[in-house]
Amino acid sequence: MEIEKSHLEKVLERIKPHIHRTPVLSSTLINEMLETNIWFKCENFQKMGAFKMRGATNAILNLPEEKKLKGVVTHSSGNFAQALSLAAKSLNVPAYIVMPDSAPEVKKAAVRTYEGKITECPSTLKDREETAYKIQEETGATFVHPSNDLDVILGQGTAAMELLQDYPDLDFIICPVGGGGLIAGTALAVKFFGNKCKCIGGEPIEVNDAWRSLKSGKIETNESANTIADGLKTQLGDQNFPIILENVEEIIRVSEEEIRAALRLIWERMKIIVEPSSAVALAAVIKEKDRFKNKNIGIIISGGNVDLNRLPF
Amino acid sequence: MEIEKSHLEKVLERIKPHIHRTPVLSSTLINEMLETNIWFKCENFQKMGAFKMRGATNAILNLPEEKKLKGVVTHSSGNFAQALSLAAKSLNVPAYIVMPDSAPEVKKAAVRTYEGKITECPSTLKDREETAYKIQEETGATFVHPSNDLDVILGQGTAAMELLQDYPDLDFIICPVGGGGLIAGTALAVKFFGNKCKCIGGEPIEVNDAWRSLKSGKIETNESANTIADGLKTQLGDQNFPIILENVEEIIRVSEEEIRAALRLIWERMKIIVEPSSAVALAAVIKEKDRFKNKNIGIIISGGNVDLNRLPF
Repeated sequence: MEIEKSHLEKVLERIKPHIHRTPVLSSTLINEMLETNIWFKCENFQKMGAFKMRGATNAILNLPEEKKLKGVVTHSSGNFAQALSLAAKSLNVPAYIVMPDSAPEVKKAAVRTYEGKITECPSTLKDREETAYKIQEETGATFVHPSNDLDVILGQGTAAMELLQDYPDLDFIICPVGGGGLIAGTALAVKFFGNKCKCIGGEPIEVNDAWRSLKSGKIETNESANTIADGLKTQLGDQNFPIILENVEEIIRVSEEEIRAALRLIWERMKIIVEPSSAVALAAVIKEKDRFKNKNIGIIISGGNVDLNRLPF
Repeated sequence: MEIEKSHLEKVLERIKPHIHRTPVLSSTLINEMLETNIWFKCENFQKMGAFKMRGATNAILNLPEEKKLKGVVTHSSGNFAQALSLAAKSLNVPAYIVMPDSAPEVKKAAVRTYEGKITECPSTLKDREETAYKIQEETGATFVHPSNDLDVILGQGTAAMELLQDYPDLDFIICPVGGGGLIAGTALAVKFFGNKCKCIGGEPIEVNDAWRSLKSGKIETNESANTIADGLKTQLGDQNFPIILENVEEIIRVSEEEIRAALRLIWERMKIIVEPSSAVALAAVIKEKDRFKNKNIGIIISGGNVDLNRLPF
């Protein structure tokens, strides 16, 4: 399917009643420090605390009625598990969540709060996929991938779309790169609604699979996952990679130290709670300060779900 | 001086170009949990991170020009030191800040960032007052008390005034009680701009001097200061106490455990960084949940300056 501007417009129209139009914040101090103008799109204030609510809601709303009745299934131990559970709950649809038995209790509890039905399995990808498949067979539920699904990608793109509605003259929109759903959606929004705007990704050096994928032209994987940006450990997929390859200007890689410093700056100066993954985009701007001088920059703050008992400060 | 509605209106008009009109947030989850409607006035997003910027700005703007040239002086180791420094800097006025030599380096550094001129002295109130008096003698600077000064009180009241402009039908506005500047200003705003609205204070049981003062009809002091709400250890003064006595409906006292739980709720669910003192107002609502059921409540989030290396989680 050739994706068009009208697709994104329809998606935003469809999910609008079910999501928050999140606020856009700026910080005089950060702008002065970097001699630039940054607008932060605060998806940490989104329902369930992350942009993933957008994609999950769109994926469910786009199902035919008879499929809605049978529910949705995904495998995730992170924000998408919560997003799909809450979106499903709000739309009266059953949600089946496959989680590794090693997932922290706090994450399982969050899914249960939103009435997601958890099935535990060993933590290998093979086990998770097989378990999800078995649930599809048994229940007739539709599988929704956390990032490699076009409805999810278009849903995630609505955050950048809203940001460009508010600030049409941004030079750049920068977002973190994990499984590729957010950056693919953001790149499409930038393409259709930007005015000379470019989409840039921020990625931890420790899990720079997307940066390497753009270089090699094929989907690369990570051998380690040693980053505090725990939402960014996953790899790209066949649905989002072609979109990223075509529409993302560049990926800027940042060190753990740079992510930590940007995270602290956001917490201390903006007084908002954001996930380490969200700080990767600001870290990219700080790293290449000269290049972004006097530019108008949008940053997608991806989410704010952190475990207060395990803060990196 | 009899304080009138027009005084507060003039104050807001005067300080408006120099402060942020802070956003008002609400949380579906907290509202559902408490079966109520709470509107949080987010002074943690105010310049320098606290409502004190309002009072400090008003106190300086209200000085005659020849006094502005000579500067302002205060003694404070907390937010007011930063607020007076930043307000003075923005208005090209010298600011002299008396701080106890035992004050944490991080607080001194914050004052220096805003170009406040620090004089250190021993930490007793007598030493601080004497040092401030000496600076007044030497420089001709005007002393501005952090909470017991009518210009400061009126400045602090503008937060509640803005909140009532946005939400005129609040049943209650609740704020923390420390030195009394915020609650006195808030009570005046409620009196002049509320529509059947009442002003309530939240205070830690550990430093319940204001609660006792309302009982006894005279200013009481604290014997200990064992609270995480470190902005609330100070006592009322002769300028703000009569206003509080006349216009505050009640003070609700909360335990350290209740403050900590409310603080965590705000951080985890609202994704904003607030000081422990700010959580005292929400803790009061949670404590008397039945009474506040189905009411429209405004809460003044007093500030967001916390030391990330010393979090109470």
